[in-house]
Amino acid sequence: MFIEGGVTAPKGFKAGATHCGIRKNTRKNDLAVIISEKICTAAAVYTQNKVFGAPITVTREHLQDGKAKLVICNSGNANTCNKDGVELANKMSQLVADKFNINKEDVIIASTGVIGQTLPIDKISQGISKIAVSENGSVEAAEAIMTTDLVLKEVAVEFEIENTICKIGAIAKGSGMIAPNMATMLTFITTDVNISTEMLQLALTKTIEPTYNMVDVDGDTSTNDMVSIIANGEAGNDLIDTENENFKAFVDALMEVNLFLAKMIAKDGEGATKLLIVEIIGANNDQDAKKLAKAVTASSLVKTAVYGNDANWGRILCALGYADVEFDPNNVSVKFLSKNGEILICEQGASVMFDESVATHVLNESEITILVDMHQNNGTATAFGCDLTEKYIDINASYRS
Amino acid sequence: MFIEGGVTAPKGFKAGATHCGIRKNTRKNDLAVIISEKICTAAAVYTQNKVFGAPITVTREHLQDGKAKLVICNSGNANTCNKDGVELANKMSQLVADKFNINKEDVIIASTGVIGQTLPIDKISQGISKIAVSENGSVEAAEAIMTTDLVLKEVAVEFEIENTICKIGAIAKGSGMIAPNMATMLTFITTDVNISTEMLQLALTKTIEPTYNMVDVDGDTSTNDMVSIIANGEAGNDLIDTENENFKAFVDALMEVNLFLAKMIAKDGEGATKLLIVEIIGANNDQDAKKLAKAVTASSLVKTAVYGNDANWGRILCALGYADVEFDPNNVSVKFLSKNGEILICEQGASVMFDESVATHVLNESEITILVDMHQNNGTATAFGCDLTEKYIDINASYRS
Repeated sequence: MFIEGGVTAPKGFKAGATHCGIRKNTRKNDLAVIISEKICTAAAVYTQNKVFGAPITVTREHLQDGKAKLVICNSGNANTCNKDGVELANKMSQLVADKFNINKEDVIIASTGVIGQTLPIDKISQGISKIAVSENGSVEAAEAIMTTDLVLKEVAVEFEIENTICKIGAIAKGSGMIAPNMATMLTFITTDVNISTEMLQLALTKTIEPTYNMVDVDGDTSTNDMVSIIANGEAGNDLIDTENENFKAFVDALMEVNLFLAKMIAKDGEGATKLLIVEIIGANNDQDAKKLAKAVTASSLVKTAVYGNDANWGRILCALGYADVEFDPNNVSVKFLSKNGEILICEQGASVMFDESVATHVLNESEITILVDMHQNNGTATAFGCDLTEKYIDINASYRS
Repeated sequence: MFIEGGVTAPKGFKAGATHCGIRKNTRKNDLAVIISEKICTAAAVYTQNKVFGAPITVTREHLQDGKAKLVICNSGNANTCNKDGVELANKMSQLVADKFNINKEDVIIASTGVIGQTLPIDKISQGISKIAVSENGSVEAAEAIMTTDLVLKEVAVEFEIENTICKIGAIAKGSGMIAPNMATMLTFITTDVNISTEMLQLALTKTIEPTYNMVDVDGDTSTNDMVSIIANGEAGNDLIDTENENFKAFVDALMEVNLFLAKMIAKDGEGATKLLIVEIIGANNDQDAKKLAKAVTASSLVKTAVYGNDANWGRILCALGYADVEFDPNNVSVKFLSKNGEILICEQGASVMFDESVATHVLNESEITILVDMHQNNGTATAFGCDLTEKYIDINASYRS
């Protein structure tokens, strides 16, 4: 069940943010902290890009013991492809650890922004010295990690484990340089569930694949992506240390959180005006369905047609055709669905007579589903993307200036 | 050596075009024919998309005997994903064969345009009845196969085989739905070289990989791509039927033609203002270099930065990082080159101090080369792309209207 709040919704967490001035010309907060009163079990998944940020290196080291207490994240600078990046990420961890009187090894650190510029550690040091956390700090923290995001991304859910009320909260950032094949973008999750590190990592991994890994904004897999979760056990449930019913309840709740944020990230893709959901059914198997769904979501031609409310379904078949999956085009059917209704536009791989004005009406909505039936077997998958607009170009032709 | 003209530059070829009215609201010619007086050896490479156009099916059948005499191509309708597509492509072949008094099996047929709309065979029939060919018809034919192309694509070269002068001519169309991994877009090549079908196919295949298959406009592999070549032997050289020196001379000339057109197609990518050449050197092997070059050329973020004259080299390293190639980011160096000069912007995977205004000046040109040295081994590759602009969105958000 969705509830109000974000990372401070679960018991025992505080958050806050401040303005360091990492990027010029903005008074927006750019440094966020999430902290737990008690030591937490912790897990994370990271970008699979061969070029990865210094904060990823440092967080990996810190999470080797499966414990953490604090998350720190700056926006405006990715601290990636810098000679002294790891050194500065370590320094930033030490500064925030000193400030909150915890061990440096209990810090999860993340950075997002421009690649290849030295992290302004002096500004960050000043920011850390003045940062304050509170039980109402989630919104502030969510706002501080935004870059080109237009929408603040925060969510919390409540669920029961054997009559004990448990909560999960999260904040995220997305927008650009977002593509499948990894633990995409930044999401920081907190929970008061009592769970072992091993089961926490397993739960996180299970929920990444059908959520963030099915999102594609622009095909670019970022260097700094990370999803982390810290669990402080304050809900008071019996420790989850095997894959039992309680574990399943936790995974279900976590799935709800991650699916919500994945869709939110897709919908707020750079320059996007629409959330594009591509649902494949009837594929040979789930793996094939995934490839097909991702190919359609990633196609620039499909994305621009969706932007233009143009029922140009030939581009959908074209994208399916290069997805590296075996199928007979003569069996494929395609439907568009939205709040405005639904319309069948292609059957047995060929056009059906459809009313263009109805199709345009269905497409003229902020959430569009393309439902493709391969008529092969029972494989299914759903991918999340967005339309491609002039605004994406505007944003990215001058990102650094 | 480049010479004037296109497909009618080699001896014994004529071409022409006419207006059938396949697309509304345009008086542009939309049907082209190329014909050889004598029967030709013929070869072709086709799209690898699982969803492919009816003309591909029919051309494959016709070229089974390795012979052809005529090429016909319409723009405005792809004749793809239609129930009666193959039937109509056969009918179109028969109509043009009757008109020019040749065998239907000697026709190479191609269509380009919207997918999933029935081919207007009556209009095409009328067009065929009035089409006229001449020795000056190459420009007309090149113009008729254009869709969103802004620039007419035609080229011819002359070379010698044992003191016999030989020629190769070609016309092409490109622009959108263009990606690597196939015999991309439409190119029709003619030559008066005397060569066996087997050697002709081999020469074509050899020259496709480093040219068209290294082009990426928007990552979308089209359903109708084809490169065909017909050779009528009128130059009078000794028949080329083995991989001897004469074969090599022919391959070199053909490479020149295909490289020229590949670059032209990239530069005239939909909405593009710049040709982007990505040159990888020092990779582990050529295969790795290819993957790396293609990843950079395909990155929307690199493409938009090039559009904005923004030396945002972090995006180049990011793209290299997800190219599925093993390397150490700390060894990579990156240079920008253009007519306006060159500038080193990244060394050992990190920023070098460079003058932003100089970098912007180098990028402010219509042909940009990104030179990446992996410092691993001797692998090299060059890929061709273009920038991504608002215009691409404009064109594709309303392509069918």
